[in-house]
Amino acid sequence: MFYGGDYNPEQWMSAVWREDVALMRAAGVNLVTVGVFAWSALEPISGRYDFAWLDTVLDGLSDAGIRVALATPTAAPPPWFSRRFPSTLPVGPDGVRLSPGSRDTYCVSAPPYRGAARRIALALGSRYGGHPALAMWRVHNEYGTTCYCDLTASAFRSWLQRRYGSLAALNEAWTTAFWSQRYGDWSEVLPPRRTQYLANPAQVLDFRRFTSDELLDAYREQRDVLRAAAPGIPVTTNFVLGDWVPVDHARWASEVDLVAVDHYPSSSGPAAEEEAAFLADLARGWSGDAGWLLMESAPNLIYTPGRMHTKEPGRMARQALAAVARGSRGAMFFQWRASRGGAELFHSALVPHAGTDSRVFREALALGPALARTAEVDGAPVEARVAVGFHEPSAWALTATVLPSSTVDHRAEARHAHRALSRAGFTCDVIGSLDDLSRYAVVVLPCWYLLTDAQAAALTAWVGGGGRLVATYLSGVADGQARVRLGGYPGALRELLGVRVEEFHPLESAGWSETVHLAGAVATACYDDGRPAVTRHGVGAGSAWYVSTRLADDAYTDLLGAIAAEAGAEPVRPRPPAGVELVRRVAGDRSWLFAINHGETPYELGAEGVDLLTGDPVTPSSVLPPGAAMVVRAVQSNVMIERRPD
Amino acid sequence: MFYGGDYNPEQWMSAVWREDVALMRAAGVNLVTVGVFAWSALEPISGRYDFAWLDTVLDGLSDAGIRVALATPTAAPPPWFSRRFPSTLPVGPDGVRLSPGSRDTYCVSAPPYRGAARRIALALGSRYGGHPALAMWRVHNEYGTTCYCDLTASAFRSWLQRRYGSLAALNEAWTTAFWSQRYGDWSEVLPPRRTQYLANPAQVLDFRRFTSDELLDAYREQRDVLRAAAPGIPVTTNFVLGDWVPVDHARWASEVDLVAVDHYPSSSGPAAEEEAAFLADLARGWSGDAGWLLMESAPNLIYTPGRMHTKEPGRMARQALAAVARGSRGAMFFQWRASRGGAELFHSALVPHAGTDSRVFREALALGPALARTAEVDGAPVEARVAVGFHEPSAWALTATVLPSSTVDHRAEARHAHRALSRAGFTCDVIGSLDDLSRYAVVVLPCWYLLTDAQAAALTAWVGGGGRLVATYLSGVADGQARVRLGGYPGALRELLGVRVEEFHPLESAGWSETVHLAGAVATACYDDGRPAVTRHGVGAGSAWYVSTRLADDAYTDLLGAIAAEAGAEPVRPRPPAGVELVRRVAGDRSWLFAINHGETPYELGAEGVDLLTGDPVTPSSVLPPGAAMVVRAVQSNVMIERRPD
Amino acid sequence: MFYGGDYNPEQWMSAVWREDVALMRAAGVNLVTVGVFAWSALEPISGRYDFAWLDTVLDGLSDAGIRVALATPTAAPPPWFSRRFPSTLPVGPDGVRLSPGSRDTYCVSAPPYRGAARRIALALGSRYGGHPALAMWRVHNEYGTTCYCDLTASAFRSWLQRRYGSLAALNEAWTTAFWSQRYGDWSEVLPPRRTQYLANPAQVLDFRRFTSDELLDAYREQRDVLRAAAPGIPVTTNFVLGDWVPVDHARWASEVDLVAVDHYPSSSGPAAEEEAAFLADLARGWSGDAGWLLMESAPNLIYTPGRMHTKEPGRMARQALAAVARGSRGAMFFQWRASRGGAELFHSALVPHAGTDSRVFREALALGPALARTAEVDGAPVEARVAVGFHEPSAWALTATVLPSSTVDHRAEARHAHRALSRAGFTCDVIGSLDDLSRYAVVVLPCWYLLTDAQAAALTAWVGGGGRLVATYLSGVADGQARVRLGGYPGALRELLGVRVEEFHPLESAGWSETVHLAGAVATACYDDGRPAVTRHGVGAGSAWYVSTRLADDAYTDLLGAIAAEAGAEPVRPRPPAGVELVRRVAGDRSWLFAINHGETPYELGAEGVDLLTGDPVTPSSVLPPGAAMVVRAVQSNVMIERRPD
Repeated sequence: MFYGGDYNPEQWMSAVWREDVALMRAAGVNLVTVGVFAWSALEPISGRYDFAWLDTVLDGLSDAGIRVALATPTAAPPPWFSRRFPSTLPVGPDGVRLSPGSRDTYCVSAPPYRGAARRIALALGSRYGGHPALAMWRVHNEYGTTCYCDLTASAFRSWLQRRYGSLAALNEAWTTAFWSQRYGDWSEVLPPRRTQYLANPAQVLDFRRFTSDELLDAYREQRDVLRAAAPGIPVTTNFVLGDWVPVDHARWASEVDLVAVDHYPSSSGPAAEEEAAFLADLARGWSGDAGWLLMESAPNLIYTPGRMHTKEPGRMARQALAAVARGSRGAMFFQWRASRGGAELFHSALVPHAGTDSRVFREALALGPALARTAEVDGAPVEARVAVGFHEPSAWALTATVLPSSTVDHRAEARHAHRALSRAGFTCDVIGSLDDLSRYAVVVLPCWYLLTDAQAAALTAWVGGGGRLVATYLSGVADGQARVRLGGYPGALRELLGVRVEEFHPLESAGWSETVHLAGAVATACYDDGRPAVTRHGVGAGSAWYVSTRLADDAYTDLLGAIAAEAGAEPVRPRPPAGVELVRRVAGDRSWLFAINHGETPYELGAEGVDLLTGDPVTPSSVLPPGAAMVVRAVQSNVMIERRPD
Repeated sequence: MFYGGDYNPEQWMSAVWREDVALMRAAGVNLVTVGVFAWSALEPISGRYDFAWLDTVLDGLSDAGIRVALATPTAAPPPWFSRRFPSTLPVGPDGVRLSPGSRDTYCVSAPPYRGAARRIALALGSRYGGHPALAMWRVHNEYGTTCYCDLTASAFRSWLQRRYGSLAALNEAWTTAFWSQRYGDWSEVLPPRRTQYLANPAQVLDFRRFTSDELLDAYREQRDVLRAAAPGIPVTTNFVLGDWVPVDHARWASEVDLVAVDHYPSSSGPAAEEEAAFLADLARGWSGDAGWLLMESAPNLIYTPGRMHTKEPGRMARQALAAVARGSRGAMFFQWRASRGGAELFHSALVPHAGTDSRVFREALALGPALARTAEVDGAPVEARVAVGFHEPSAWALTATVLPSSTVDHRAEARHAHRALSRAGFTCDVIGSLDDLSRYAVVVLPCWYLLTDAQAAALTAWVGGGGRLVATYLSGVADGQARVRLGGYPGALRELLGVRVEEFHPLESAGWSETVHLAGAVATACYDDGRPAVTRHGVGAGSAWYVSTRLADDAYTDLLGAIAAEAGAEPVRPRPPAGVELVRRVAGDRSWLFAINHGETPYELGAEGVDLLTGDPVTPSSVLPPGAAMVVRAVQSNVMIERRPD
Repeated sequence: MFYGGDYNPEQWMSAVWREDVALMRAAGVNLVTVGVFAWSALEPISGRYDFAWLDTVLDGLSDAGIRVALATPTAAPPPWFSRRFPSTLPVGPDGVRLSPGSRDTYCVSAPPYRGAARRIALALGSRYGGHPALAMWRVHNEYGTTCYCDLTASAFRSWLQRRYGSLAALNEAWTTAFWSQRYGDWSEVLPPRRTQYLANPAQVLDFRRFTSDELLDAYREQRDVLRAAAPGIPVTTNFVLGDWVPVDHARWASEVDLVAVDHYPSSSGPAAEEEAAFLADLARGWSGDAGWLLMESAPNLIYTPGRMHTKEPGRMARQALAAVARGSRGAMFFQWRASRGGAELFHSALVPHAGTDSRVFREALALGPALARTAEVDGAPVEARVAVGFHEPSAWALTATVLPSSTVDHRAEARHAHRALSRAGFTCDVIGSLDDLSRYAVVVLPCWYLLTDAQAAALTAWVGGGGRLVATYLSGVADGQARVRLGGYPGALRELLGVRVEEFHPLESAGWSETVHLAGAVATACYDDGRPAVTRHGVGAGSAWYVSTRLADDAYTDLLGAIAAEAGAEPVRPRPPAGVELVRRVAGDRSWLFAINHGETPYELGAEGVDLLTGDPVTPSSVLPPGAAMVVRAVQSNVMIERRPD
């Protein structure tokens, strides 16, 4: 199990490096990410590299048995670079070119930037490709910068030409007949810059798709340089989630050797753990059974609006184990040692400002051995027969469009479905592709707005073969270009769901309702006035459900739990108490139950086996106390576990 | 009675056009607005027109007896135009030139834009001036774009030179002695661009006046081209109301052959109908007895903040009849057929996404005949002996000025007075000119801030002759250049009102109070501490009331109702129940009572005659059920009405 | 005692000037500020001065015995200037150059602006340096404009070179190792312009420091010109406080001959008086015992968010006396006569729009004599043995930094400490320097974030010698470059306070708590869970208190009152009733008690002597009625006071 975090030796003198290595060893750290923002330290003057300090750092780590995810530093070009190549500074939608002074201040479509990125990657690859500390490459950091400059406009046009072939096809796809936007020449096509009134939503959507692909190209260039320089070393980049991120991670997943994600939940209460569970299942959706890596998380802080919440004692370890439970190949943190200056000086760290005589560092010392004791589960698939769809282009399209309600939010709806299934006791996959649903008994599509004919056909076939589909409002309403399918909502799914929706009726207080006509389906729940609200349509061996409203948490949990039960999926435990997180991993005839009690009441787990964390036997009446975690290897597994010394 | 809406055949294939005509006929549609945003379809390449599709569309409509308000498409220049003439792209107050990608992206002061607008108008006028479908020209769409570019600055200077004659006069009018803003040369005068701190309010006010006049010039140019090309065809443009609209519609009204307004109320409850009534009475104030036209309204949506509210069944028809009641020559909608893409794809339509098998289309089918049965009232004046002033320059001046309270809002105050009079049972005119008040018993001036000496003199003469004036706080405080009149508020009206206001005292929670000294007037209502709040000043045969605060709805209704009664004005019905809208139209010895029940309780109308909508007789005990409407021709009218077949 | 206000004769015709002088004499006005925004009147064309009107005005004032604070008009360059020298228009952080049309629209680093400012100062100095009306020079108005242009960037670099000597030192001070911001050449250093993500907080802090120094240079240039032209005439500029003001007034105080401040409180209730008291004590902190001057205040308005609150009758006089009580050498207002136009036309004035027949002017008539009767206290020091620290660079650093809570606010914390001590009955100094604390028994450092080693040493010595230090959370956490001191908070004060803070725990609802370890201190108050919240550390003859949280008003008042009592400081009166403001002035064996009752209950003052305002004797049972004020000369003073005629 990987354990460690971002390590920035360039901020410290060499005496600190030696202390760092000693502390890392004490804590059991086995992987650190080095060099993420070190460009100006590595290349202080254009073309003049300074690798001496990094040599020393890597050698010291290697000597201590600590391996390195070596980063390329391209997310933060040095001041000399921005000054020499001002065309690489990004331009906002209002045409204002940004200044350096932060990070991420680059235009990915600017040739000087791309060239410099390849060069520094090559320099690192050449020098360190064979270094014994090198465990993997981490390219860049949290790809996500959008630019609207003329170079970007030109690249956008090329992308559109490849996508659509002809201007006529573009005009059709973007419905440019509306508001006299028909293009007569490719040169007229622009990024969605600041304009007088509402923008064309198809243009906005495609610009995000383009940006994702353009960033992906930049990633691929570095990856290929590194692969050539250091064959066999895995290459990845760390994904980050958020409305502002113009990256369609589902398309990127196959391009990385290990799916790596950063996660900073946004609420301080129990929702943080539910959000983390969602992200973990999503990362697994991208990685498949190969496993993924929680590349960054905060040791001691949760950023909530206006306030950094400090994590309660033990919470860091519980969250780390929860990530491992859901398939992470370890737990990595931002960051090893807290900075004393710079923009993030109060970001938390395993070695905080207060130093090693601190609760956080003591917890860091304990976490390493705990993670190590779970190593045997690495590679064992997570058991999940229900899935929730998550589709970043749908999220973007819904954001770009003036919808009947401003509260429509694909991300929130996906999390809602995941939360309901989790509370019902099911471990879910979160999936970005509908290509192969064969392993699932139930699939929920929450506001999956953009649906192609092929996807609708695949869903129909899968339901006919016994699948249970649950689609919520707005799913399938639009085609891949965000054009509404006519004749009644939800367009592409009308026949499969056996309904025809005539009107949307957004309600006050973020409610949503619809006029749903039954066309084969039966109503299983109705609005107060008797109109259908939730419907079920039997199709072949399966059934297709439509949820035309936003259900309250409990009702949604009941509904999805019942559908999953009907589909023959079994919960890990039915309706576990609030805060109890349960995940089963299975490999062949071996299985492990991760049980983590984030809540406040003891829980009788009802499992039998051995707790990997302690080596203690677990019996059906064993109790999981509040704040505790167990990893129970089932009794049928006949492998010895070393008892942890008291 | 006109019935129809905006029709955008350029978004659809010709098969759809044929279906459209058939459906329009079925619904009784007799007028559609065509070509509003069709520039890129009409002139896909600079100077190369494509009229073939429009020929087909107009011929098809004509063959079906459907007439056309043919629009000039100048509100949305095509991409090729913006690219070829970047100087026509508007510039914001911060100096940023906007990009194309929406609509309304033009600078009205840019010569290439003005020339192109005249050319396309001429091309349309030449080709279709004699087309049998042509009922009227609709120039542009919702004029309202503001620009701050250098071309605009130059035009602004010319306008100021015409207005003030000399720099000295400008300096005096704008009080440039304040903050060292004295101009020494015309070249120094600029639009109110982004500056360091508070702007000069007189500059901001005059810039809005200039923008209105500049847009009006552009309208006039197109109108004159069309009149020359097609003598006898009426020309109009559609007005839209809102804080952001830099158009003084009262000045425009005499330049259009038919006052046409767009209306999208902003609240979903009963306030929507009260807002619609205000706008209708305002449109009539601009049109006079000649009648006006509700050019655009939404068939099925009310845009409220964050949410589109769908109209309840029957509400579309009630609102259409309410517009006709108040003088509209029909009811037109945006739009005929819902778009499948573009920025407004969820805007409602008579033919919605769901198609013709829909509540909305069924209501559309019923509305045509209903409107047709009201045709005999067309041209009959609305009976109104009370009026509320509405003065867009005062609204602008109050917005531009740092007032003692940020809650002062001329538009809201005008609506408040209108609502109070309506609830008291009176039909009001809403008037933008004080030139001739002879037809009114009562006139309310709500926060009419800018008042000239001549206007004050006219008001004084009218009150002396028997008029009842009700002025609310801030009315008359400033002269036409937004300079405060000294010696005590409310400056120009002090003598007429018989009061002298020493201080304003804005209160928390948006309240307002004043220190009012009586100087001839008597107090009719006082603040808690005994100071005068509402006063009355007898002047000759009339009286002048001053309301120094914001009254609650009920108190305001009582006050205005009592003043109107004293003035001898009669309500249609005193204090009708909530939601019951009543308007009387009178022509010679004929009269009609429009009665519309938007509320929830049956109403015994107390009228006698025949209901035009059904042909049924109406007796004094006839009841108007909730949701229903009647148009009762009074018994003294001896005209036969055909009974509607059941 | 100075009494008067800003006077703008350039806005009025000469007939008004004559009325003004007569009214000023009637009111006892003895000082008016003239010419603040008169540049375009004084130099209507470049290089062509018009002094005739100002000659007439000054002569008229002089003849009436009214003296003048003659302003240089450089805060508002005329339109011709901005047009001729566009490089003097300020540029925002987004690179947008602002337009003229307001005031303060200058770049202080632009050579043409600096030259023009010196020239107009010289012209005024030469012409009026010997004028009998001239009492003082007031340079500029409320220095505070920030610019980000290239000229500014160049000046910023020069300032940094002087400050740091080498790029290496700058890189170290700004922690540029974070996010690859290491500078390789001075040309790469920029103002903190709009960038992609979080800015470097040290860069932001130094840019504010630079702006303060650059503005100070501009002030000094004018001051030196005026001193040379008119030796012996004091020179000042008016300070204004606020988050947006990039001026470190503590550094400016020694550069002005009289500390002059503008004050516009921001809440309408009793907090206004507490805010005014804080500002007055802060001005005294800058001026020392020499006295300061309330240069601007509003006669009749308090600007609260969204509303101008009119002051209650008598409140203007009470606030004027309160300023005098705390060391102001008079009371000056913005403004003498209300403008009829311009951006501030509803700002209040001693002569309001309503004219002289007004409450405000009648109060102005009464205030002059009242102030005159307090003249004997001028020069007598205010008695204060407790002090609150106020450090504008700390406020800036906390604003620039992403803190664990967005609610941290040095200004609010300083006001909180001042309020608590005031409510406990103590008159405080508010101090910007820690160099000499010998006169104080107690010093409170509220969130004094930036603390140098030398300051920490001075505090330690002072405490050892018997001082009582109260430091609140975040004080001393960072060094002068906003770098966190490692090893445990609060870095520089850890040893003195005898605590070691391991973690911050911001709470919801703007609360703050910490994990505090005792390291010599004892806990005097604890959190609910028993952890120390407030601690005390005995050090030599003194003690050092640490407050790790935000205390409620009452608790804070109790705590600081108890510490002050322990330190031997005596309140004027212990815990006076709400709204009763008490200040003692002492000069040799004479003393005066200012007692002002802003509250609603009578107060038995318990003093003996003579009330300067009335000449009446005061006995221990004399009662100060609500709304009243007394200035009681203590009985031991054997000076006769004239009894005021009834």
